[in-house]
Amino acid sequence: MDISQRAENMPQSPIRKLARYADAAKRNGIHVYHLNIGQPDIKTPECALEAVKNVNRDILEYSPSQGLKSLRTKMVGYYAEYGIDLSPDEIIITAGGSEAVMFAYMACLNPGDEIIVTDPTYANYMAFAISCGAVVKSVKTNIEDGFRLPPMEKFEEQITDKTKAILICNPNNPTGYLYTKQEMLQLRDIVKKHNLYLFSDEVYREFIYTKRPYISACHLEDIEQNVVLIDSVSKRYSECGIRIGSLITKNKAVREAVMKFCQARLSPPLLGQIVAEASLSTPQEYMDMVYDEYLSRRNFLIDGLNQIPGVFTPSPMGAFYTMVRLPVDDSEEFCKWCLTDFSYEGATVMMAPGTGFYSNPEDGKKEVRVAYILNKEDLAKALVVLRKALESYNN
Amino acid sequence: MDISQRAENMPQSPIRKLARYADAAKRNGIHVYHLNIGQPDIKTPECALEAVKNVNRDILEYSPSQGLKSLRTKMVGYYAEYGIDLSPDEIIITAGGSEAVMFAYMACLNPGDEIIVTDPTYANYMAFAISCGAVVKSVKTNIEDGFRLPPMEKFEEQITDKTKAILICNPNNPTGYLYTKQEMLQLRDIVKKHNLYLFSDEVYREFIYTKRPYISACHLEDIEQNVVLIDSVSKRYSECGIRIGSLITKNKAVREAVMKFCQARLSPPLLGQIVAEASLSTPQEYMDMVYDEYLSRRNFLIDGLNQIPGVFTPSPMGAFYTMVRLPVDDSEEFCKWCLTDFSYEGATVMMAPGTGFYSNPEDGKKEVRVAYILNKEDLAKALVVLRKALESYNN
Repeated sequence: MDISQRAENMPQSPIRKLARYADAAKRNGIHVYHLNIGQPDIKTPECALEAVKNVNRDILEYSPSQGLKSLRTKMVGYYAEYGIDLSPDEIIITAGGSEAVMFAYMACLNPGDEIIVTDPTYANYMAFAISCGAVVKSVKTNIEDGFRLPPMEKFEEQITDKTKAILICNPNNPTGYLYTKQEMLQLRDIVKKHNLYLFSDEVYREFIYTKRPYISACHLEDIEQNVVLIDSVSKRYSECGIRIGSLITKNKAVREAVMKFCQARLSPPLLGQIVAEASLSTPQEYMDMVYDEYLSRRNFLIDGLNQIPGVFTPSPMGAFYTMVRLPVDDSEEFCKWCLTDFSYEGATVMMAPGTGFYSNPEDGKKEVRVAYILNKEDLAKALVVLRKALESYNN
Repeated sequence: MDISQRAENMPQSPIRKLARYADAAKRNGIHVYHLNIGQPDIKTPECALEAVKNVNRDILEYSPSQGLKSLRTKMVGYYAEYGIDLSPDEIIITAGGSEAVMFAYMACLNPGDEIIVTDPTYANYMAFAISCGAVVKSVKTNIEDGFRLPPMEKFEEQITDKTKAILICNPNNPTGYLYTKQEMLQLRDIVKKHNLYLFSDEVYREFIYTKRPYISACHLEDIEQNVVLIDSVSKRYSECGIRIGSLITKNKAVREAVMKFCQARLSPPLLGQIVAEASLSTPQEYMDMVYDEYLSRRNFLIDGLNQIPGVFTPSPMGAFYTMVRLPVDDSEEFCKWCLTDFSYEGATVMMAPGTGFYSNPEDGKKEVRVAYILNKEDLAKALVVLRKALESYNN
């Protein structure tokens, strides 16, 4: 009566390992600045909160396995604003972006099939691959280059007859990198040449802080049948808890395959869908306010980090994370030490060790991921704490 | 760029195949009595609906991966009333019972491992097994015996060195059968003898229409570490759409394994958890009203069905389904014909062909599953339509 090999193989995120140390620090009266998490402190839009209060149903019944038609229809208008032309039938509603990734793998990958991701990467892409028996190969990007895409030869080197897909996250979690048009065209060419799927997670599309244009995988010509878009309303409207994402593709065979898994789990969350549908009417002023807030936090944080001796971070172009190189030998040890052995004026910081984002954890031993989801006042205090922690740790 | 073998292997439910014929019938102005579905027409409890209106949060944020502590704590009290002694840590909240089944398989079964189910069975148990690469073996139960458990030798015959688990649904969907104490003790013995997991789906525990006592897998002595309870609030409170279920086990290693999959999907639906927590305060009068309603529908339906020439159904002891033998050679053909070629006084019936509930579809060719989730007036009309349909079909 063993547990399964795949459960054994599931990575234990370094953040999870740190959680109990953070809890202990808090019990000791230490304030912990959470730079580790992706839960925004931004208020959910009023129209979304109102939609909850206005739910007027006698029965909270199953919704269709594909998701409410009214939500999918409204989403068509949303995507049209980004130059992505869809019909409601091409949209499948999922329990968060997570389920969309899982179902994309389930529908497209056999056990043993390979999928190429860029390193560092969102750790759960690897976790879902283990769930499905797929194998993750990675192409490393580097902090010195601002995590830009390496030459296509690096992808070619990883492609075997088992390779079925390339997965990108754009703008990127954890690096904040936004792919250039040239990079996207190169990806298009390689996807087309080897007839691969291109899974593109674009949940941070609203958070782009550069004049560089946003190129969606859905904008690429000639690979319409290869692209599977992963999306979620979680970050866009600060409603991570409602668990509403989507899987979008022009490829009918993939949609039909995904729908089989959707039907087995019966339906996506009804109340979340009602909230998501209302959220699509969020006023532009809210979106602008949130955008300005993140932009200003980003600028403040990046400047502050780079002023700490020995610390380097490139300027992320999107999302609300940045990878940071620290003057330490083992970021996991340092992050733990901050929680167990250090405080400055009653406070410390919690960061996500870089090791959790690389397929080879060694590659992340000098890096941490920092999320800028705290207000600037707190970010300022957290920066002071981090500076003091590094001084103390290195003495 | 093929779709995966597991997607190819996923069964297409016969009900799904019929859905477009039902849609076409409705477009032609024919009223369709839905005897095929598990969506109750019962109103969700007032306290649950009120909880939605009273959600008072500024941010609809991630909940913990294990589920809200307040919900899990309240559930402890619910289970205590059924003589099931738990701590909040032993409860993991999932996106419906579906996710609980999926995660139980993921955590406990390797690809190629075998799980034994009783036939006929809830089709999605097979679908989730395909998702995980597990192999379903089945022990057939028979309509003539009222679907009681066959002798344990039948289970022994199916056990190999690959067998990791037995899965039961009690009270049973699709048969309505409730396992006797003796049957449960036999299952206990075989589980213990071969050191198997016992996955027990008990989502219909409130719907038991016999004086026979309810024996939960959690009541069985000496196999506390083997039992994984699958549960859901969907049917109990007529809130299938909120997608809140649970996976419950005393086995710490299994919980830790399951939690890895929970963490990868981040969190269960927040709003659904708020509703589920409120639902646990549903007044006994509501539960009694619902119980009386189903009991009365059951009695009415079973009598009515058995009065139709050539039709036989045992009396289900629980849940709100019954398997029905019809005087036809191919239930899938007959169910389709009812939708495409028949109507009586402007109405027809939709039923779930038995073929979808058996690992060998041939075994279900003379059977259909009928759900009694319509009010008695509609059930009466549906019975007339079914009688006329059989007369017409067999002429």
